[in-house]
Amino acid sequence: MREKKIRVGVLGATGAVGQRFIQLLADHPWFEIGVLTASERSVGKPYAEAARWILDTPIPEGVRDMVLVDTTPEAVGDRCDIVFSALPASTAREVEPAFAAAGFAVFSNASAFRMDPDVPLVIPEVNPEHLGLINVQRERRGWSGFIVTNPNCSTIHLVCALKPLHDAFRLEQVMVTTLQAVSGAGYPGVASLDIVDNLIPYIPREEEKIESEPLKLLGTLVGDTVHAAPITISAAVHRVPVIDGHTEAVVVKMKSSPSLEEVKAALAGFRGVPQRLQLPTAPDPAIIVREEPDRPQPRLDRNAGKGMATTVGRLRPDPILDYKFVLLGHNTIRGAAGASVLNAELALALGYLDK
Amino acid sequence: MREKKIRVGVLGATGAVGQRFIQLLADHPWFEIGVLTASERSVGKPYAEAARWILDTPIPEGVRDMVLVDTTPEAVGDRCDIVFSALPASTAREVEPAFAAAGFAVFSNASAFRMDPDVPLVIPEVNPEHLGLINVQRERRGWSGFIVTNPNCSTIHLVCALKPLHDAFRLEQVMVTTLQAVSGAGYPGVASLDIVDNLIPYIPREEEKIESEPLKLLGTLVGDTVHAAPITISAAVHRVPVIDGHTEAVVVKMKSSPSLEEVKAALAGFRGVPQRLQLPTAPDPAIIVREEPDRPQPRLDRNAGKGMATTVGRLRPDPILDYKFVLLGHNTIRGAAGASVLNAELALALGYLDK
Amino acid sequence: MREKKIRVGVLGATGAVGQRFIQLLADHPWFEIGVLTASERSVGKPYAEAARWILDTPIPEGVRDMVLVDTTPEAVGDRCDIVFSALPASTAREVEPAFAAAGFAVFSNASAFRMDPDVPLVIPEVNPEHLGLINVQRERRGWSGFIVTNPNCSTIHLVCALKPLHDAFRLEQVMVTTLQAVSGAGYPGVASLDIVDNLIPYIPREEEKIESEPLKLLGTLVGDTVHAAPITISAAVHRVPVIDGHTEAVVVKMKSSPSLEEVKAALAGFRGVPQRLQLPTAPDPAIIVREEPDRPQPRLDRNAGKGMATTVGRLRPDPILDYKFVLLGHNTIRGAAGASVLNAELALALGYLDK
Amino acid sequence: MREKKIRVGVLGATGAVGQRFIQLLADHPWFEIGVLTASERSVGKPYAEAARWILDTPIPEGVRDMVLVDTTPEAVGDRCDIVFSALPASTAREVEPAFAAAGFAVFSNASAFRMDPDVPLVIPEVNPEHLGLINVQRERRGWSGFIVTNPNCSTIHLVCALKPLHDAFRLEQVMVTTLQAVSGAGYPGVASLDIVDNLIPYIPREEEKIESEPLKLLGTLVGDTVHAAPITISAAVHRVPVIDGHTEAVVVKMKSSPSLEEVKAALAGFRGVPQRLQLPTAPDPAIIVREEPDRPQPRLDRNAGKGMATTVGRLRPDPILDYKFVLLGHNTIRGAAGASVLNAELALALGYLDK
Repeated sequence: MREKKIRVGVLGATGAVGQRFIQLLADHPWFEIGVLTASERSVGKPYAEAARWILDTPIPEGVRDMVLVDTTPEAVGDRCDIVFSALPASTAREVEPAFAAAGFAVFSNASAFRMDPDVPLVIPEVNPEHLGLINVQRERRGWSGFIVTNPNCSTIHLVCALKPLHDAFRLEQVMVTTLQAVSGAGYPGVASLDIVDNLIPYIPREEEKIESEPLKLLGTLVGDTVHAAPITISAAVHRVPVIDGHTEAVVVKMKSSPSLEEVKAALAGFRGVPQRLQLPTAPDPAIIVREEPDRPQPRLDRNAGKGMATTVGRLRPDPILDYKFVLLGHNTIRGAAGASVLNAELALALGYLDK
Repeated sequence: MREKKIRVGVLGATGAVGQRFIQLLADHPWFEIGVLTASERSVGKPYAEAARWILDTPIPEGVRDMVLVDTTPEAVGDRCDIVFSALPASTAREVEPAFAAAGFAVFSNASAFRMDPDVPLVIPEVNPEHLGLINVQRERRGWSGFIVTNPNCSTIHLVCALKPLHDAFRLEQVMVTTLQAVSGAGYPGVASLDIVDNLIPYIPREEEKIESEPLKLLGTLVGDTVHAAPITISAAVHRVPVIDGHTEAVVVKMKSSPSLEEVKAALAGFRGVPQRLQLPTAPDPAIIVREEPDRPQPRLDRNAGKGMATTVGRLRPDPILDYKFVLLGHNTIRGAAGASVLNAELALALGYLDK
Repeated sequence: MREKKIRVGVLGATGAVGQRFIQLLADHPWFEIGVLTASERSVGKPYAEAARWILDTPIPEGVRDMVLVDTTPEAVGDRCDIVFSALPASTAREVEPAFAAAGFAVFSNASAFRMDPDVPLVIPEVNPEHLGLINVQRERRGWSGFIVTNPNCSTIHLVCALKPLHDAFRLEQVMVTTLQAVSGAGYPGVASLDIVDNLIPYIPREEEKIESEPLKLLGTLVGDTVHAAPITISAAVHRVPVIDGHTEAVVVKMKSSPSLEEVKAALAGFRGVPQRLQLPTAPDPAIIVREEPDRPQPRLDRNAGKGMATTVGRLRPDPILDYKFVLLGHNTIRGAAGASVLNAELALALGYLDK
Repeated sequence: MREKKIRVGVLGATGAVGQRFIQLLADHPWFEIGVLTASERSVGKPYAEAARWILDTPIPEGVRDMVLVDTTPEAVGDRCDIVFSALPASTAREVEPAFAAAGFAVFSNASAFRMDPDVPLVIPEVNPEHLGLINVQRERRGWSGFIVTNPNCSTIHLVCALKPLHDAFRLEQVMVTTLQAVSGAGYPGVASLDIVDNLIPYIPREEEKIESEPLKLLGTLVGDTVHAAPITISAAVHRVPVIDGHTEAVVVKMKSSPSLEEVKAALAGFRGVPQRLQLPTAPDPAIIVREEPDRPQPRLDRNAGKGMATTVGRLRPDPILDYKFVLLGHNTIRGAAGASVLNAELALALGYLDK
């Protein structure tokens, strides 16, 4: 499609999310990896030596011997104009602004700036128009580059499923109970003694993210401000012994009173900008509605749409709110690295990366 | 305490619940096992040969060589007056009435008769007075014996926690999302291919039980009828890779508006008839309230109160209903065999087993 | 490569191995699925309705609606000349000869005829010349078709690793301790109560297969007879909570006394006929030797070579025999369906399927 | 039995092994906990606040509020004369000699001094007479106290099973392949991403311990020296997704040629000094021989003898060496804390703790 691929960098390339970025970018039709950064003790080492690779596909050939550089704009230099950030929030808070100030387009999976008023928090199927905040951000902060963020892993799949319902029927209340995979905690993350024959009904700061991020995502950009959607969300989160794939039991109340068939049709028929633009990483359909009584299941459905789709099942009426259903999605592909990559594809397709 | 132990039988003694009955009755201060029944192909075999024992304590000595008899009143004969039923619902529906008609007191874990208007569905801490239905049942059906049932494994722990809240604050709505252990499906039950690195968001007929049984349990016995409690319950159930211990994420709405401290005090201070009577199998306290942010957990809390207690944690306000919390309990001890045994202890203490 | 794909059938298509056959044949460059058979109660149903699909890729489109036929040569008719058998051993013993007699080329994963003197038991990298038994078999049995078998899942990966050692250094003794995945037991197979937080040190009839099949595979075809290799094998098998991927701890004694480097070179440099012929399903290399101290691991290495390679690691001297190492391979791809498919590719390439 | 319990201390009380010490000492008939030590950041805190308790029984009441002290003889002072060491090897190497020099009897689970010629490495059933090294050690090092160690978790159960075979038939070669539980790595220990749907064929420094420690344990104390037993051991170790309970596949070659029945009788009939002295923590029998084809299994057999017994099964002839079998034992009870406690009971019973 493109004559020449665009070189990109991955910040924090050795961790669990960094590895997913590398995996997803390895054969990307638009992007190619030009530089990888890591923390101090890994700088100067070849990638394959520094990273404890935990994915079930091998380290891509071109990456094995790539020497890791420091996570600074200076160290990255002119090896790329776009960087994907797999940094932890605390590091991201310090480092990402430096990259944006130095002219880099930063597509970040970190939570550090998600809720900043002038930072786009974007799911391409949900609120592509929020990329308009890029201009606001640049002007306000005096940056030549910018930061675009994607939401928390649980939020992404939840909001993918909520979007067509909100558009069609106006959501008022959402109750969500999550059963989240251990890969969401990174590596080493959850101790095996805490999760074999066990589960943990708690993930630090997760419920707060799920209760707030969707309001911005489903909110309306008016001028230079996103007005939060007037929805109340209640979240209860659990870590379960599953490697990949977050499951979410959802109950919704809507302003209008759609029939079950209307709700199902809204979900199954949903197509967003990425599907219309046929972005390389966009799943089509974005939402898969299954009819079997016992689906979705993590091991069987997490790789749907190459890990980019959200699968919904068990749609049924709820005696307290309106309808309930189960949704499932891959938490480190669409829920993390894939979300940032799709954001970059969207930004590129919409012209935000033109010089 | 008693001069002579009362001999009891276990119907369906080789299965998962039957094994728990045997384990719990092995050193019981009031009861001793006099007879074990099984399906046709095991009749005549010594117990240790016929049962595939799946518990982590050995088969009690006196039971190993006990020869299994047919599941009929005739085969059991006068070896006991009380039988505990670990039968599947379909068998229970045929067999339990025969035992009751023949004069046996049947304490059943099966779902067959739970919702029959003249059959007590009892949790001793919750509705001990419903044992009064025994007389109604005997009269109506012309039985010299009777059937007393206990609820579904998830219902039991849920209603244990709901009882003090309903007494003090009048429940109106309850949303519950369960994460249930594989032992709840019996043996062989859930296939390992379905649950290793996976979970299943569905258990046949389970949501219906959780949405209906509590209304009878929390209902009021007026004359010879139980008036169902006017509460709306919504359940979403999941099978997770945990051996024992059901976890339930609960959200409640109550008529009065208690403070969080009042709710916590009601839970922590709850004592029922079994605690006051100091029944041998009764846990004290019945409800354990934990303050750690990440408890209860199945592996750490399922054995609380020797598997008979319900543990509650993460009590916090809910933005849609009133409060939410997580509860956990052992599903084959308090959730099945232990529930029947405690029912028998209650019936004995209250004089229902006097000749 | 070929102008027209060859139509094939899958016998016993709904089970775990049958599903793998379908998955592997879905995009095969030489073969295409023409007919699927099943047991009586599924005959007449569309595949997607009859099969409980347990793989994490969707049912191939062309297969979803294919109507299942009876497992007889008559029902299959002229829809194909080649059938892959995923039948259980007991059924295979009756049905496969009927297909061979009716002129079908049967590539079977079943154990029924593996050790019959005139039935080729083949791993293409190990003993492609044993396909010569096809002529012996046809003549002796008067069949126009034939049966070719592949070994047990654990045997395949073991013998793949042993082959270069036997060729170069003459094996005398092999001790193997396996840690086998639950998918090897089919579906429903191993109960979750038997394997969550547990393992089982026993698999019926498995040790016998591992101790005998390699002797035929590494044996020499002289005239119309395979002379078994003079090697002593001792096997101890275990079922562990892993979905896919058998791990085997191997200790070997050899006639010559190679250095560790020579052993490693023999393993890493191994190429067989399938690699030289570049058969579509052949992995290249066939054996991957890893240097990390903690590899191979099932989740990370089972998909090496698209599930067709054997990974070897931790090669080190043994104080009792000569050398020890760990090997790992996918048990339902190379260890079952993929083995049969590769056998068919070999037979086709060598002219055994010419009319 | 004793008029007054003896006060003991636990060094490194907050970790996984420290917790087992506390659990085992909570109701001990001879000992009571007088002091608990921890690393710097926990000193001064109540135990329940500092420890992340991972056992499924609650923290014993008397221990919850015990304030942790520094791991030095000065901090422990005269609160006890006996200390149990749950320290990591590196800390143990520095701290345990200081305690021994200060007059404490140190019963250590650490590996630091196990192979020192004047330090007893003891399993009470195997080599109680090696406690005689205490006098050698005291004299040589000028200590008023002493250090007694127990072996590695895998070694303990292996040598418990080997002892009667060595006594009766003289062992020559032992091949052992282990499948070890995650609790053996402490907390947090093994990452869940490394072990869910996976196993790791490697544990650092474990094979070396299993290949060397048994030779000292089965060796002969002559004068002030232990002569190592002339046995060759080969070990291959694996970490598997099991919480507690190490499984070991063992193959042995013996000097004499016993029948299978003789081997079985030697194992089943084994009784050692702790059984004869009826030490409080000693299991009786020490070795349980099971006849079922699929036992022992971790979840079903790890708690045999309250976690202190070794279970042996699947005894059968081996085509390369003589016999093979599977053994299983609890790795943090008999394999760690329980081993030290039993050593202390033995030392007390034999008079080594008399003033």
